[in-house]
Amino acid sequence: MNSAFTVFMRYVARVEVGLKPGHSDPEGETTRDSLVEMNYAVESVKVSKVYEILVEASSLEEAKKMVDEMCRRLLANPVKDNYKISIEESR
Amino acid sequence: MNSAFTVFMRYVARVEVGLKPGHSDPEGETTRDSLVEMNYAVESVKVSKVYEILVEASSLEEAKKMVDEMCRRLLANPVKDNYKISIEESR
Repeated sequence: MNSAFTVFMRYVARVEVGLKPGHSDPEGETTRDSLVEMNYAVESVKVSKVYEILVEASSLEEAKKMVDEMCRRLLANPVKDNYKISIEESR
Repeated sequence: MNSAFTVFMRYVARVEVGLKPGHSDPEGETTRDSLVEMNYAVESVKVSKVYEILVEASSLEEAKKMVDEMCRRLLANPVKDNYKISIEESR
């Protein structure tokens, strides 16, 4: 009898999604205005979002591919967002 | 005649604000549910926010103090958020 099985590992991916240069960032601008009103010498504020995702996959390569796909399909807007992924095995 | 003046430098602060453990993260949960519906093997998602702030200050120490105060006064909710700051001179 043949025993074939795949071992799934857990990986933690950190995905940072931010606006591409040239796209307006209303949340950043509002935050800057509030800070300036509070008398802080602030020139600009840019806001981005970090998703820490715990995934199961058979290898680091597969996990990376999966998370990259999640970014393109759900987490980032390809028209206006940049994203970067860092990923490691979950301890 | 005495000439006394302060030179102001520009610093870039990166502030990451995330929920303290035990606080519910509805945005993370909704994102996880969407990813699971799309058939990704996702266990959990935590969302946090990054503010990249360009400030003027007379020294790195002063800039750090200023940004820490901004966190306590505006960017983070002391009841439910953790924050961490990294800061360097702007090139």
